[in-house]
Amino acid sequence: MSSIWGNKIKVSIFGESHGEAIGVTIDGLPSGVLIDMDKILHFMSRRQAKGDAWATSRTEADIPRVLSGLYNKRTTGSPLCAIIENKNTRSQDYSQQDMIPRPGHADLTAMARFEGYQDPRGGGHFSGRLTAPLVFAGAICSQILEEKRIFIFAHIESIGDINDQRFDSVNFSLKELAKIQNKPFPVYNDEIAKPMIDKILQVKSEQDSIGGVVECMAVGFPCGLGSPMFESIEARISSIMFGIPAVKGIEFGAGFAVAKKMASENNDVPYFIKNKMSNNEKSVDESLSIRYKTNNAGGIEGGISNGMPVLFRLAFKPTPSISKEQESINLAERTNIKFNGKGRHDPCIVPRAVPVVEAAMAIVLLDLM
Amino acid sequence: MSSIWGNKIKVSIFGESHGEAIGVTIDGLPSGVLIDMDKILHFMSRRQAKGDAWATSRTEADIPRVLSGLYNKRTTGSPLCAIIENKNTRSQDYSQQDMIPRPGHADLTAMARFEGYQDPRGGGHFSGRLTAPLVFAGAICSQILEEKRIFIFAHIESIGDINDQRFDSVNFSLKELAKIQNKPFPVYNDEIAKPMIDKILQVKSEQDSIGGVVECMAVGFPCGLGSPMFESIEARISSIMFGIPAVKGIEFGAGFAVAKKMASENNDVPYFIKNKMSNNEKSVDESLSIRYKTNNAGGIEGGISNGMPVLFRLAFKPTPSISKEQESINLAERTNIKFNGKGRHDPCIVPRAVPVVEAAMAIVLLDLM
Amino acid sequence: MSSIWGNKIKVSIFGESHGEAIGVTIDGLPSGVLIDMDKILHFMSRRQAKGDAWATSRTEADIPRVLSGLYNKRTTGSPLCAIIENKNTRSQDYSQQDMIPRPGHADLTAMARFEGYQDPRGGGHFSGRLTAPLVFAGAICSQILEEKRIFIFAHIESIGDINDQRFDSVNFSLKELAKIQNKPFPVYNDEIAKPMIDKILQVKSEQDSIGGVVECMAVGFPCGLGSPMFESIEARISSIMFGIPAVKGIEFGAGFAVAKKMASENNDVPYFIKNKMSNNEKSVDESLSIRYKTNNAGGIEGGISNGMPVLFRLAFKPTPSISKEQESINLAERTNIKFNGKGRHDPCIVPRAVPVVEAAMAIVLLDLM
Amino acid sequence: MSSIWGNKIKVSIFGESHGEAIGVTIDGLPSGVLIDMDKILHFMSRRQAKGDAWATSRTEADIPRVLSGLYNKRTTGSPLCAIIENKNTRSQDYSQQDMIPRPGHADLTAMARFEGYQDPRGGGHFSGRLTAPLVFAGAICSQILEEKRIFIFAHIESIGDINDQRFDSVNFSLKELAKIQNKPFPVYNDEIAKPMIDKILQVKSEQDSIGGVVECMAVGFPCGLGSPMFESIEARISSIMFGIPAVKGIEFGAGFAVAKKMASENNDVPYFIKNKMSNNEKSVDESLSIRYKTNNAGGIEGGISNGMPVLFRLAFKPTPSISKEQESINLAERTNIKFNGKGRHDPCIVPRAVPVVEAAMAIVLLDLM
Repeated sequence: MSSIWGNKIKVSIFGESHGEAIGVTIDGLPSGVLIDMDKILHFMSRRQAKGDAWATSRTEADIPRVLSGLYNKRTTGSPLCAIIENKNTRSQDYSQQDMIPRPGHADLTAMARFEGYQDPRGGGHFSGRLTAPLVFAGAICSQILEEKRIFIFAHIESIGDINDQRFDSVNFSLKELAKIQNKPFPVYNDEIAKPMIDKILQVKSEQDSIGGVVECMAVGFPCGLGSPMFESIEARISSIMFGIPAVKGIEFGAGFAVAKKMASENNDVPYFIKNKMSNNEKSVDESLSIRYKTNNAGGIEGGISNGMPVLFRLAFKPTPSISKEQESINLAERTNIKFNGKGRHDPCIVPRAVPVVEAAMAIVLLDLM
Repeated sequence: MSSIWGNKIKVSIFGESHGEAIGVTIDGLPSGVLIDMDKILHFMSRRQAKGDAWATSRTEADIPRVLSGLYNKRTTGSPLCAIIENKNTRSQDYSQQDMIPRPGHADLTAMARFEGYQDPRGGGHFSGRLTAPLVFAGAICSQILEEKRIFIFAHIESIGDINDQRFDSVNFSLKELAKIQNKPFPVYNDEIAKPMIDKILQVKSEQDSIGGVVECMAVGFPCGLGSPMFESIEARISSIMFGIPAVKGIEFGAGFAVAKKMASENNDVPYFIKNKMSNNEKSVDESLSIRYKTNNAGGIEGGISNGMPVLFRLAFKPTPSISKEQESINLAERTNIKFNGKGRHDPCIVPRAVPVVEAAMAIVLLDLM
Repeated sequence: MSSIWGNKIKVSIFGESHGEAIGVTIDGLPSGVLIDMDKILHFMSRRQAKGDAWATSRTEADIPRVLSGLYNKRTTGSPLCAIIENKNTRSQDYSQQDMIPRPGHADLTAMARFEGYQDPRGGGHFSGRLTAPLVFAGAICSQILEEKRIFIFAHIESIGDINDQRFDSVNFSLKELAKIQNKPFPVYNDEIAKPMIDKILQVKSEQDSIGGVVECMAVGFPCGLGSPMFESIEARISSIMFGIPAVKGIEFGAGFAVAKKMASENNDVPYFIKNKMSNNEKSVDESLSIRYKTNNAGGIEGGISNGMPVLFRLAFKPTPSISKEQESINLAERTNIKFNGKGRHDPCIVPRAVPVVEAAMAIVLLDLM
Repeated sequence: MSSIWGNKIKVSIFGESHGEAIGVTIDGLPSGVLIDMDKILHFMSRRQAKGDAWATSRTEADIPRVLSGLYNKRTTGSPLCAIIENKNTRSQDYSQQDMIPRPGHADLTAMARFEGYQDPRGGGHFSGRLTAPLVFAGAICSQILEEKRIFIFAHIESIGDINDQRFDSVNFSLKELAKIQNKPFPVYNDEIAKPMIDKILQVKSEQDSIGGVVECMAVGFPCGLGSPMFESIEARISSIMFGIPAVKGIEFGAGFAVAKKMASENNDVPYFIKNKMSNNEKSVDESLSIRYKTNNAGGIEGGISNGMPVLFRLAFKPTPSISKEQESINLAERTNIKFNGKGRHDPCIVPRAVPVVEAAMAIVLLDLM
């Protein structure tokens, strides 16, 4: 068991979906950083279900209570712990679950791992609700990164087979990217929002759910961070991202498409440009910088950042909890059965996952610096 | 910097491509395990270039010398260190490299990370040659796993756009799978070997290189291992796999395809079967076991193994070093240039990567147990 | 910064003396352990100041609120977090402290480490109050150990130059040892309590404080745990014990006295005895066990437990905060000054440290198993 | 098992006393540091037995062979591995050992820990010989520290009941201290060398051995490093020092003597002085620094360095291997017996331990920076 992540910044998550409270302790933060709690709350609200038709009907205020590590609004350098009380719980929805493991869920594996003693209510420690404290931690980290002009953006790259425009990590406008973070449905190309939402609502009407892809890009990350081998940036990013429930794949830069490419197409060519244009470029001197013509590497070569945006995509599976009839087993009766699930669930977790991915990325980048 | 991986089993890799020697220390092995050195050498020979047209012309005997941790052919429980001397080096090939960073390589990022003091010869610590000690470590680990009836198989899933048949992780024959490990060109479906090799030779004749995908499956891994969140099996596997040079993506089970699926398609349905058929199934009692109808989850739910084969695929980029004319920069002259690369390189790294992936997987699984 | 300790069991402490709350997250506990909360509260009450003349006048109820990791009174296997609200705070006592660093305290070093942003109230994260969550964690761990018949006892070995009888770790009665844990002033030999308390009261009347030694013994710890070199039991124990404020030395078994001994005196001689007498002895078979005639090694040889009680002593410095006039500096005025300290402090921390040492030891032993 | 130490600098030791080779990998070194191999060899030679009457008659050249991590005499930033071949081995001396565990040694505990599969020859991985690669690693680290004007000195503080003068950590001369490192018998006060050596020779003539204390002081270590709680400097130092065979106690500054003191005696008083006098003092500005009148804290307050020398003492037990008749057990015959030990051993390990302590301290300090 380890719900702790990080080397220099250690993020320790605790809590169960329907327990007393969930929370996070962040150990290793620099001291003296002024924290804007309104921005934290805004970041966290992006993850919340707010009654939109495409999200769960369980709504929680999710106001974090900071217990330690802040003094006069600044980080003290001691562990910063924040908790979120669980209030809107309907645990009776889960009473049948002990006996009927939900397909696609961790019911059976949790039983094997924790010998049946796990908290079964609402998925317990496996719940997507545990991403709330992760987002809190990431929101703290991203404030520190933003002071260093490092910005992280994510969007819905696809829902089912409907695709948003991918990020262009060579030519982009920070201003355009920043807009995404205020959208209720975070896509890059606004015209794609309606078809996507329609798709989710259709799936929802079928008592089913659907998967999708989130794309994330970090701009301004300095070159020369990371390491070859096991502390490569890819290794670090993937090790936290697979801690987000429902993630089943990750790819950097051109990703799986590199498998079809020849080196002459795939290699990113460096070139000199006059005048330093942003803080992430390798600056030779005041008048000359190095950039790359393409970014198939997703900003990472040999496990180390090259100054281009760090770019990756995550595959999210469809929320396994659905009301549609499914097959499973009844552990008490030892029979193969059909059943209909209960509970309040997202017909598509992807829109709410966008700020979670940004938050996790902020933790990685701060840990690497 | 950290070329160390693992929690219970710590694998520490050292060495540079053209240095004195490369090697590995494995800390945390159980004591008393009888090691069959012939099997280790066979495993390692699968990674070696043996003069095949589709591999580098640099050939190394790669005989590991065990310095510690073995006594009377059994593990002592103390750190096991083995080294491989570097002999067939042609460092003069790399003399121009200090000034002309090779596109797609870590030349520029290494310079930024190590302030120019990295060993530039043959890629130094970034070289694919460092996978030799990784394979040694994995070969040791896989012997321990095989005693527990856990077997790991990998194959070339694709080269460019030519695809081998994927593993069927629900119905399979261990005997069929085991054959792959003796093939010089490790594909599942033999008929696909020739088109793939032809493709590599064509690319080679163009002085270019090509990418591909490796698929890996671990059979017999017990259910209930791993953890939710940051010690999920996906997180552990990905954190070591991205330490293998050229890997740019990883996906588990159905992988990125889950993004297009609905839960009713994607959820793996458990069912009871009479009689326990293999050691990886969750056994209810002597007469009843649980299996799954499909394996979209790749054997992992909630970060924990469910007893089905653990299945994943890795995207490998084309070897960046090619002789074809490419653009780059000349750091000394501060000009954008064209140049032709030198050195001996694999036109496709994927065939030799197959045992590397198996080895890394063996390390992960032993560490999880 | 790292207020996290442990390999398999990770204990993460957070909080500041006068902040909102202090607490602890324990990651890696086995699932299914029935927790007796009354015993936890009793353990914690032993650390509390309860108005005794020899302790601080700050009294806190110190009732932990468990937020996660317990379900139906049993551990779930997920992180167990408990918090203790801070109530009885008198922060105005500390207003001068920013400018006048208290000798013997971490005021100046905290300022250097956290660039002046540490929470100065009541010592912040440096406060001895942070041992309350440590005791909570240890109380949880010791319940698990007691199920395995492993018991931990500590007592005041000395206050100033007044010595209690040392533990006899070769011949002892569990029943006798268990009595210590119910004593308000935890000494082994009751007759020494009064002289010790008198000494503390005398020192207190002089507005001064005094140091002492705590001795700790773990009985029933199985042989064969620990490792040579850096994971030696001594290394593990010392690494947590120096996290307890005021500890300046640790010695195992005969301790510093070994420096004056010859091997023929110091070596512990093993011998066979008929019949296994306790669970910690190395059992050859049902009729024969190995014991040692002496225990100069403190139960640890080559970093590994030998089945004898694990025995060590810790030196505690006198509480640095005293009301007596002392010299220091005034940082604002940049002058060397004399001043009188304020605040409520223990004239001797040693009696309250006894359960803290037991708790920390319980964490180590559970982590080693 | 873990023979790996460190956070930023990871030192991984491998090897067995009579195996092929022993060695160390250092991961995390800064790149570009010029290494003076002659100084490394000199440092290592201080640990070697050179035929002195007070040391073992086993002499090894102990020339390290650097396999990786150095290029053009500078660190590359990749793992630096060095090995030392074992040559002068007389393994037949150890043939009886399997059956007769040597009192005071790890024979029985190793058997329990490694189920009898440990390498028994010469103590295997438990041998004091494993301190040779530790000294190599420390010698590398101390070269980096010396560039930052941080110097580490150790001396024999006592052999049996004969005491050298303790270091004065308030008033000292770097020049005087540096002389110790060239003494064949490293004491501070030369007049004490003869009585100490006489004592060792007397003990040796009795076929016995004797213990002692090593004192170590680091000068120039900047203030503000370390952390409260579990990453305190005391915790970090002790966690590596107990990895040195035979260490049974550690104390910082006034050490166990603090237990007898009152705060008014023990608290170190800070004061302002004009002009910065050394690089370790907390400098207020160019004209004003803070020093302490005493150093009872051993340079560490609240786990953090205060700019005074870091000072500690280690208790070494007498080498357990002696030729004098001792009692033990015969495991084959299951009888309590008397026996005479064989093998070549140091009658007092303390003189050779002095550079080992310095080396381990260099690793800690570099890791903390």
